[in-house]
Amino acid sequence: MTNGYEQNENEQALDILNLPQLEADAKKIIPTGGFGYISGGSEDEWTLRANRTAFQHRQIVPKALSNIENPQTDTTVFGLNLKTPIMMAPAAAQGLAHAKGEVDTAKGVAKVGGLMAQSTYSSTSIADTAAAGEGAPQFFQLYMSKDWEFNKSLLDEAKKAGVKAIILTVDATVDGYREADIINNFQFPIPMANLTKFSEGDGKGKGIGEIYAAAAQKIGPADLQQIIDYTDLPVIVKGVESAEDALYAIGAGAAGIYVSNHGGRQLNGGPASFDVLESVAKAVNHQVPVIFDSGVRRGSDVFKAIALGADLVAIGRPAIYGLALGGAEGVASVFTHLNDELKIIMQLAGTKTIDDIKQAELLNLNY
Amino acid sequence: MTNGYEQNENEQALDILNLPQLEADAKKIIPTGGFGYISGGSEDEWTLRANRTAFQHRQIVPKALSNIENPQTDTTVFGLNLKTPIMMAPAAAQGLAHAKGEVDTAKGVAKVGGLMAQSTYSSTSIADTAAAGEGAPQFFQLYMSKDWEFNKSLLDEAKKAGVKAIILTVDATVDGYREADIINNFQFPIPMANLTKFSEGDGKGKGIGEIYAAAAQKIGPADLQQIIDYTDLPVIVKGVESAEDALYAIGAGAAGIYVSNHGGRQLNGGPASFDVLESVAKAVNHQVPVIFDSGVRRGSDVFKAIALGADLVAIGRPAIYGLALGGAEGVASVFTHLNDELKIIMQLAGTKTIDDIKQAELLNLNY
Amino acid sequence: MTNGYEQNENEQALDILNLPQLEADAKKIIPTGGFGYISGGSEDEWTLRANRTAFQHRQIVPKALSNIENPQTDTTVFGLNLKTPIMMAPAAAQGLAHAKGEVDTAKGVAKVGGLMAQSTYSSTSIADTAAAGEGAPQFFQLYMSKDWEFNKSLLDEAKKAGVKAIILTVDATVDGYREADIINNFQFPIPMANLTKFSEGDGKGKGIGEIYAAAAQKIGPADLQQIIDYTDLPVIVKGVESAEDALYAIGAGAAGIYVSNHGGRQLNGGPASFDVLESVAKAVNHQVPVIFDSGVRRGSDVFKAIALGADLVAIGRPAIYGLALGGAEGVASVFTHLNDELKIIMQLAGTKTIDDIKQAELLNLNY
Amino acid sequence: MTNGYEQNENEQALDILNLPQLEADAKKIIPTGGFGYISGGSEDEWTLRANRTAFQHRQIVPKALSNIENPQTDTTVFGLNLKTPIMMAPAAAQGLAHAKGEVDTAKGVAKVGGLMAQSTYSSTSIADTAAAGEGAPQFFQLYMSKDWEFNKSLLDEAKKAGVKAIILTVDATVDGYREADIINNFQFPIPMANLTKFSEGDGKGKGIGEIYAAAAQKIGPADLQQIIDYTDLPVIVKGVESAEDALYAIGAGAAGIYVSNHGGRQLNGGPASFDVLESVAKAVNHQVPVIFDSGVRRGSDVFKAIALGADLVAIGRPAIYGLALGGAEGVASVFTHLNDELKIIMQLAGTKTIDDIKQAELLNLNY
Repeated sequence: MTNGYEQNENEQALDILNLPQLEADAKKIIPTGGFGYISGGSEDEWTLRANRTAFQHRQIVPKALSNIENPQTDTTVFGLNLKTPIMMAPAAAQGLAHAKGEVDTAKGVAKVGGLMAQSTYSSTSIADTAAAGEGAPQFFQLYMSKDWEFNKSLLDEAKKAGVKAIILTVDATVDGYREADIINNFQFPIPMANLTKFSEGDGKGKGIGEIYAAAAQKIGPADLQQIIDYTDLPVIVKGVESAEDALYAIGAGAAGIYVSNHGGRQLNGGPASFDVLESVAKAVNHQVPVIFDSGVRRGSDVFKAIALGADLVAIGRPAIYGLALGGAEGVASVFTHLNDELKIIMQLAGTKTIDDIKQAELLNLNY
Repeated sequence: MTNGYEQNENEQALDILNLPQLEADAKKIIPTGGFGYISGGSEDEWTLRANRTAFQHRQIVPKALSNIENPQTDTTVFGLNLKTPIMMAPAAAQGLAHAKGEVDTAKGVAKVGGLMAQSTYSSTSIADTAAAGEGAPQFFQLYMSKDWEFNKSLLDEAKKAGVKAIILTVDATVDGYREADIINNFQFPIPMANLTKFSEGDGKGKGIGEIYAAAAQKIGPADLQQIIDYTDLPVIVKGVESAEDALYAIGAGAAGIYVSNHGGRQLNGGPASFDVLESVAKAVNHQVPVIFDSGVRRGSDVFKAIALGADLVAIGRPAIYGLALGGAEGVASVFTHLNDELKIIMQLAGTKTIDDIKQAELLNLNY
Repeated sequence: MTNGYEQNENEQALDILNLPQLEADAKKIIPTGGFGYISGGSEDEWTLRANRTAFQHRQIVPKALSNIENPQTDTTVFGLNLKTPIMMAPAAAQGLAHAKGEVDTAKGVAKVGGLMAQSTYSSTSIADTAAAGEGAPQFFQLYMSKDWEFNKSLLDEAKKAGVKAIILTVDATVDGYREADIINNFQFPIPMANLTKFSEGDGKGKGIGEIYAAAAQKIGPADLQQIIDYTDLPVIVKGVESAEDALYAIGAGAAGIYVSNHGGRQLNGGPASFDVLESVAKAVNHQVPVIFDSGVRRGSDVFKAIALGADLVAIGRPAIYGLALGGAEGVASVFTHLNDELKIIMQLAGTKTIDDIKQAELLNLNY
Repeated sequence: MTNGYEQNENEQALDILNLPQLEADAKKIIPTGGFGYISGGSEDEWTLRANRTAFQHRQIVPKALSNIENPQTDTTVFGLNLKTPIMMAPAAAQGLAHAKGEVDTAKGVAKVGGLMAQSTYSSTSIADTAAAGEGAPQFFQLYMSKDWEFNKSLLDEAKKAGVKAIILTVDATVDGYREADIINNFQFPIPMANLTKFSEGDGKGKGIGEIYAAAAQKIGPADLQQIIDYTDLPVIVKGVESAEDALYAIGAGAAGIYVSNHGGRQLNGGPASFDVLESVAKAVNHQVPVIFDSGVRRGSDVFKAIALGADLVAIGRPAIYGLALGGAEGVASVFTHLNDELKIIMQLAGTKTIDDIKQAELLNLNY
């Protein structure tokens, strides 16, 4: 327990029915403030809900007599060999869900042969989280600070810890208006390990707005360039929702495009992430890999996102719920479950490989 | 009673208000596990629900002054003279609903002059079910086994029993993710008669996944060819949802195309069956008959499906509910009721024959 | 009271908030069977509901600075000078709502200077209803009987009673599948006056299906021709939902086209009446007047129907609810209320006359 | 208290979560009749609801890497330098919400550097309200009276009080059919200050219909011309919903176009105000400024309206709720809160200025 915040310490594999049910289960054991922070979206959460309903507007047309069995979810992206196209999104403050935080998440993701992304605002340090990953690949997500020394320090540390790429978040120059946090008067009860060395403190006891205030509220092409120049890791731009921005970022040297609306936590009134994926991916046109997140809860969602152009599909909240309920094993259970749902969809759709999914066409019925 | 599973033994004609109400009535008397297996769809049942709502997107425009009365539902398909275009879908394990299982279903269907399709996973044997049909036509549906000897044996037996065509199911190479079965920890409490002679056992005490595991998870053009070559019965391909697949199957020698999404039990996230019927039927272009199922509960649904290109319209669950509530008489009541609803719609739409329905245009309002 | 059926005998002006509320009030005082017959639609009432929601898909764009006041609802149609374009639809068996039945309805309609349509299945006779109308214009609706003598007798009687036109219903050659009547085991507790002289009896104690069975289930061009030839009254064809049928009827000599889906009581699964009005009216192209009904409950509904091509807009159920609650005065209150709503809409839309409404364009936002 | 109507006298800054919640809070303290008058719409309030849902059909596509921070909501419209594009709509009878009425509203709006619009039917006089505004700009809205002397007197008084423009309302030549007022038998319990000098009385004890009856029910081009000729203040036409009307008004000399459906209080069955904004603004094509209101409750709504062509976005009800709960400070809190939401949206969308918003494109997904 930290500051009266009850951290779960569960360590167990989970018997998962589906991810929506998992959220209901996790809500029972994560303290109210922490759960509100994790699950909430901004304003009246229209975009959060649209992230789910958008998937219903496109349908998978199965290919009969495709002569396949044992569909394979292995994929190679960014030169990494992964057992699943489902990766862990960079999600902040996982200590809110579990005492071990990102260390357990990293272990769980490694167990399933997936890809882990650390957040700048992780509860555990870059080095600790990286070490816990046991050789499995990790990315590091950067919330740019106003303090360039801080940015360099994090980039250096990430490099040193062996992460494979930097994810630069550009859709969070100010925090979305998240009402759950206001209602709960939520302040971080636990420290953010990567903040401890710097003047802004470790985040503990602060509201999300205060944390973000230390971040750069102004991110432009020069910042992207500066980061690309400074690090020799590939830099992926996260928070892209238009073809224009994707092409701009690639022109500036981005090594990947991450289509996301931050899980409906930032710009409410913006489109569902799935609703912009296709146009962004078409613009990217395979120049660099495309990562997608926001609203993914079903194997069919993963399938649809890949069919519309995603190379990797990230989940955040569901993995954190698995973390709360089962630690590293719980996280592994979540990825295994979702990947199993994906395999069933692949088999039924007549697609044996991730590349096959990319060739699948989705129906668009306009209602 | 078998294994503590309470089988109904009702034998009575039913006074049916409508088929949705019939489901509510049947739910009260079919044991939970059995009812969950029969009624459930996969994942969050989006496709199951879409199978119903899809019919609302197209409307029947009545033809006034059409000078018809006493609409006739007789139709000739596959060279068979039927009193109704509504046929019994091949549905598994009807012993879950009634002690007599498919034997009673076959009797009921024969009573109304309809067409019965047996499932590989029937509770009663091919021969027994065929004998119960009293000379009325039957089809036999094949879930291909990994064991070709088993397939041949079933095809031989079907031929011997006098069935008129083989329905090869190609959309179920793995079972859909059906949550009701998981919640109920459902295992078949009663044997599947056609499985008894083979090594995989009779299905009793197994989960649906185990049963399917014995089936071929890999069905390709060669399999279709092999079956067509082996049997001299016409072979209908079931589970087609695209024009491409329909044309391929016809090219390979299929004698019929069965448009279906397996009642929303297999690929969730796929389109409503009704939403793909028109494009498939246009592609088939009367080269072979088209059968349609998934979501049919009203006479107007039958009408709409025929108007969009179906030659036969199958129901599964509603007939099984009639079976549970009334045995052979109950099944007959279901077909009679739905056919009566169809006749009212035909009269009001100004169509005297099934062929007239095929000429009817449906409105498409795009909302 | 007749046969234990409690007939209302209210005679009073009504203080009406709106017509949906009126239905709720009427439900409290009309016996269950009668209310089910009056209010119900066929099958699962999809079309009944669509009749209401369809109006929401088109919006009235107000014309500012139109310099009008005191909008006038007078209109001349079929050579009749009416104070309101809202007419009484021919609705059967109004004795179910009130002891005086159509006699009181006719009085109420006359009071507001409107147009009354009698139904073949009226509780009161053609002559009595006509006499009650006090010189105000009436139409007579014909359900064709299989017995041509009966038809001639009715046409003669209507002529003699001074009605101005015949409305030939062509969408009810069999009764829709109305579940409320089945649930209530509804049989007419009161006689239908026009049926008393003929062999089929007066309808009392019969189900709606039996009544309809005596009607002609087969109505074709020859029947229309025969009626047009027999009577020298103008003949309006009711139940038209397509441009083709409208043009055919006009070609055959019809003096008016009545767009209706019978209030959702006949062909369920057909389009909302409002959704076909525009295309039918465009086809008619002012050759003859167009009457519209089905789902009208608001002044804005009347406005929209006229804007899309209706010359007269009929209501049925709401007037019957007014009859139940207030007799002739109640009926007058209903028409006055709805006409007052219409006037407000006319003023706010910037339209002074019914002809102005016909020039108004409705927005179509496709959602 | 006046006539038994309990007026609030709260004076306090408000801690606002969001404006919908504010309505719920205000409902608890505003007397039923007053709240019904303020919150209600006409008929079944379809247009009132559509005013809210319409915003969901267009989505903000954020511009990444826009290199902005500290978005500025300053704007210059009608030659006025404003701190926010969110203005106070001319709303009647604010004494229903608070004893100080518009005097406090004007103070609150002045506090935030916004623009205040007075209504003809204000509870406080033009002079008093203007004086309370402490030098901040105000507009005066005119409900034309049938008595031209009255109109001249108001225009003179407005000029004398230093207001900057006249808003001529043209969508309220009769009051909409507002059922809440009928249910509550609502009559104004408090006087309307601008009416006291004239024969029609001060409005106290009258129903809304009686008040409107004194207003001109007939407003045409000549009236607009007469007002433009009489006053040397710019004249803005309020209640425009079509390109045609906007162009006509500009041709006649209007200095601004105010797109509004009167908050859903007048023509029910008309389109959502947001749904006609784009086409009107395109027609206006920057010849004069465009003001928009009806349904604005979120910062994202303000953003979307400006993106589709509004120069100013007005709110009415939310400010009145703030008035009820906190007097002048409460009003200021409402504008500050909504402007703060807008700033967050601007930052997240990558727009630094109001002009930047005008360049933003909204997605239109047609569902």
